[in-house]
Order: sequence, then structure tokens, then C-alpha cells
Amino acid sequence: MADPRPVGVIGAGLVGSGWALVFARAGYPVRVYDPLPEVRARVLPWARQSLADLQTAGLVGEADAILSRITLCDTVQAAVAGAFYVQESVFETVAAKTEASLAIDAVMDADAVVGSSSSGIPASKFTETCAHRARFLVVHPVNPPHLVPVVELVPAPWTAPDAVDLAADLMRQVEQVPVRLTREIDGFVLNRLQGVLLNEAWALYQDGIASLADIDATIAHGLGLRWAFMGPFETIDLNAPGGIEDYAARLRGLYAGMVRHPAPGPWPDAVIAAATAERRAALPAADLTQRRAWRDGILGRLIAFKKQNRLSG
Amino acid sequence: MADPRPVGVIGAGLVGSGWALVFARAGYPVRVYDPLPEVRARVLPWARQSLADLQTAGLVGEADAILSRITLCDTVQAAVAGAFYVQESVFETVAAKTEASLAIDAVMDADAVVGSSSSGIPASKFTETCAHRARFLVVHPVNPPHLVPVVELVPAPWTAPDAVDLAADLMRQVEQVPVRLTREIDGFVLNRLQGVLLNEAWALYQDGIASLADIDATIAHGLGLRWAFMGPFETIDLNAPGGIEDYAARLRGLYAGMVRHPAPGPWPDAVIAAATAERRAALPAADLTQRRAWRDGILGRLIAFKKQNRLSG
Repeated sequence: MADPRPVGVIGAGLVGSGWALVFARAGYPVRVYDPLPEVRARVLPWARQSLADLQTAGLVGEADAILSRITLCDTVQAAVAGAFYVQESVFETVAAKTEASLAIDAVMDADAVVGSSSSGIPASKFTETCAHRARFLVVHPVNPPHLVPVVELVPAPWTAPDAVDLAADLMRQVEQVPVRLTREIDGFVLNRLQGVLLNEAWALYQDGIASLADIDATIAHGLGLRWAFMGPFETIDLNAPGGIEDYAARLRGLYAGMVRHPAPGPWPDAVIAAATAERRAALPAADLTQRRAWRDGILGRLIAFKKQNRLSG
Repeated sequence: MADPRPVGVIGAGLVGSGWALVFARAGYPVRVYDPLPEVRARVLPWARQSLADLQTAGLVGEADAILSRITLCDTVQAAVAGAFYVQESVFETVAAKTEASLAIDAVMDADAVVGSSSSGIPASKFTETCAHRARFLVVHPVNPPHLVPVVELVPAPWTAPDAVDLAADLMRQVEQVPVRLTREIDGFVLNRLQGVLLNEAWALYQDGIASLADIDATIAHGLGLRWAFMGPFETIDLNAPGGIEDYAARLRGLYAGMVRHPAPGPWPDAVIAAATAERRAALPAADLTQRRAWRDGILGRLIAFKKQNRLSG
């Protein structure tokens, strides 16, 4: 890549730092801003450690060259002016997202695109008064974005189609997997799919049908094996002799019949307390941080496995 | 293992053949019966090919020794008498399961346990009149059982607890991962979790929110990566600083709010037709069989990956 225009990263917590790594890994100069100096100070040490983990998994080569592309900035303007793309990952409230969007809007290049890491608040809630609001959309990653490739692109009603195209092209270029939503919907696609599965899992646990660990095992040693490399539709397409239509003819009645009416509502306090006790017996609170690092190590190896087997999408 | 008692396998289609491989691989003599001679004739050639695939993935050693443990039988009695465990995998109708259960019941050892591969019909619907009904339960695998380890153990109201224990112990011994349900429920756990996710996925597709391929990508390149080695509860336990309780406090309102009322009903014909067109454009019907073989190859390598990383449960 000959002298690419830089990418701006606004908000440098874990999500923003992960994004900085994604863009730098792909060869882009990255300019990172966070209002808190102590947060900025953690970016490069964190990136260095994460790159070492990626090297262990065989996923990156020269760490120093990647790190050298990340520049820390003291102002929003320094991070955003001249950037062709800006990823915003500030705290997830309408107030924080609105403030950050207006600050970016004031100094951005007119042709730049701004993606928000928002996991639930749609862009229409925090970009309406931006002068460049047609250039804003949600670009929602899974945490950590340098390990989990999917990103959801969710346009506001006023987002220009070519802004979505630019974000989609960029995401493919940096080896993420963009998923395009046609319009805003609560929870987008990913958390809606996670949500219905969680709601049912909590209800089964509440009803005493199985332990938390056994419900987890049905996914981790069952459904999750196929879902690690093919989605639910391809899964059922292969699970009946005549494909998805045949599967639907055989099983839609079964699946319609097992839906709960009314749908299970907010997870009850007492059920959460029981689940917490079961989880803390399996994994003490003091070990959560270490287990997250273990998870990320496995994710890195699984991503390397998928690359080796041409499953990277 | 010094001269173990044999396992009986009744019904030798793809599921039954997979079971024969699971038990033989673990060192058990396996006696296989199917009423159709042409089905019986396919068992050993299929097992030989599957063992070759498992060898390629580094999952088994000596194929000939494993194959030599599988004996084809001409009668139910020859497969069942003397067996300490019988796996029944006949066609999934109440009539077929009842007929098979009564045939097994008539010739089984009094202390044997009979597990049905039923994926939806509970054992109470087809074992009530069996003399040994306390020894019958559902032992539901995912297809193919020699690649996907989870099995659901679902007792009928009259199943003896020690029969469930025997099935659970045996499953662990043959390197499957048993999940214990306390009682019968439509769809058991696995297909209930798959069902709610599918129902939401179909509804998102019907509403035009995203393409079939993009909905699949949110799982295959997003949620499915973690679900390949940890279940939904451990996933959320690690996804908030304070664990599952903290996660619930932050997000249960979001998830309760995105539930559809009424829940999406049977997938409509027109939506199935559109999905079928999209899938057949991505994968012609003539390629389904080849793609299933590809999937099974990946599953084998993924299982090997999980073993290497101590993720086998």
C-alpha cells in the first residue's frame, strides 16, 4: 500500500485499542485519541502484548512495524483531520456518543466516513445534528475486534449508501467480515441472535431442566462446532437430504411448537443469583481475568485454524 | 479393557452407523442389526471410509482393529442378548420407535440400558408398555455422532436413575459429552436453543434486515467462534468485568426488550422459497453431498484442534 491516508480511532479503551491494532496490522497509519491520558498510555503496551500473542498463534509477522504505525494524539482534531475513516469507540451512552460524534463532525474531512462501535444504540440516536451525518453509521465489532472478525454495518436513515460501501470495503481489506443491515433494529442481528438463545437458556435453567454447565455443553460440544465455521442457515441446508426447503418442511412445525408464550421476560434476580453461584463455583471471581486471557489465546489459535482451512470468510 | 460386554446397535442408517463407530473406537464389541440387508451392507464400507477420514485428522490409530469389533447381525436378538447397553436409531416416528423398543425389550438382559437416538420424541411416548421400561431413556446425539460429541440424556418419568448414570458413564468413556436433562421437554435442550435462534434468524430474513449469507456470517465469524469452545453462560460470564451477574445487570433489559410478541410462528412458505433460492445460488443442490463431506472433514479437524488445546470437555 503506497502511503495510505490514515485512520482515526476515537476512544482507546479495549475496543478502541483492538481497532487500532486491526488497522495498523493491515498497513494503515492509525491516529488514536482518548481524553484520558492514562487510557492513552495503555494503548501501546497493550498492543505490544496482543501482537506477541498473535505472533504465537502465527497470525502476524513483524510486530515493530505494526506498532510504529500507531500514533497517540492529544486532540480529536489531530486524530481525525486527514483521516479517510474514523472508528469511534467511546462509552456507550447517547450523551457520550453524541458528544464524540459532534467533536468528530467539526474537524473531519468531508469525504471521510465515521463508524461507531455502538453495540446497541443506533446511529440515528446520536448523529442527527451532525453536519456530515450522511457519513456516519454503526460499525459494530465483537470484542476483541482483532480476534473476532465479524462487524455489523448499520446505517441510519440518513447514511449515504456510498459511506456504507466504503466501510464494507475497508473492513474486508483489514480482514474483518462485514455484515450489512439494511436498516436499524434493536440489538442489530448479532445480539438479537445471542439474545433469543440466552433468553431460552435462562428459561431452561430457571425451570431446572439442566445445569448451567450442561446447557453450556450443548453449545460448546454440539451446536457451536458447526457454527464456528458455518451459520445456522447453511447448517440446516446440509441437515436434510433435500436441503433447506426439505429441512423446513420436516421441522418448522417442531420449532414453532416449542416457542414459549409469552416469551421469557427479563431474567429474574433469583435465577441470576443461582447462576452466579454456579459460575463462581466453577470459576472464582479472582480467576475471571486470567480466563479471559485464556479465551483470547484460544480465539487466536482458532482463527489461525480457520485460516489454514480456508474458513476465514 | 478386558473382554468388555458388547454394545447393541439397532437401526444402522447414518446415525446408527456413527454410533457403531463410536463404541468400536472406544474398544467395545458392537453388534449391529437393521431389518434391511442393503442398509446392513453399507455399515462396514461407511465405517472404513470414516475411519480413514479420522486417521487423516489424527484422531484414531489402527482402523482394522476398530472395524474388527463391529459384527453385523441378522436378528434383534443376536444384537441385543448379552449387551449391557443398546443404542436404538430407527426411523423417528412413534410407531417405529415403539416397535423397536418392544422388540429390544423382549430379548434384552434385565440389567441392560437402552438409549434411543430420538431427536424430538420423548421416551415416554414409546416405552410405556415395555417390561423393562425403567431401563429406557433418550440418548440423543448430534449427527454425525462420531464427530460431534454432545449427547442429551432425557429420562422418561419411569426411567431408573441408575440407568441414566450408566448411560452417562458410558458416554464419557467413549469420549462423548453427556448432558443430563432432569425431565422430558419438547425439543430437549439442544434443539430448543437451535430453534429460538433459527426462528429469530428466519424473522430477520423475512423482514429484509440482512441477507441469508450475512445472517450466517454473524454466527460463523462472530458468535460461533466462542461457542465452539464455551457455552453461552460462560461467554457472558467473561463479557462483563464483574462476571455473569454484572452482565445480567447491564444487559437483561436490552435482551428482554428485543423479544418479539407474538413470537415468530412457523416459517412462512414464501420466505422458505426465497431462502431456498438464495442457498441454491450459493450451493447448487447437486453439490450438497460433497459439501456435507467437506463439513465432516472440517469437523474432524476442529475436534482434533480442540483435543490439542484441551477443549474436549
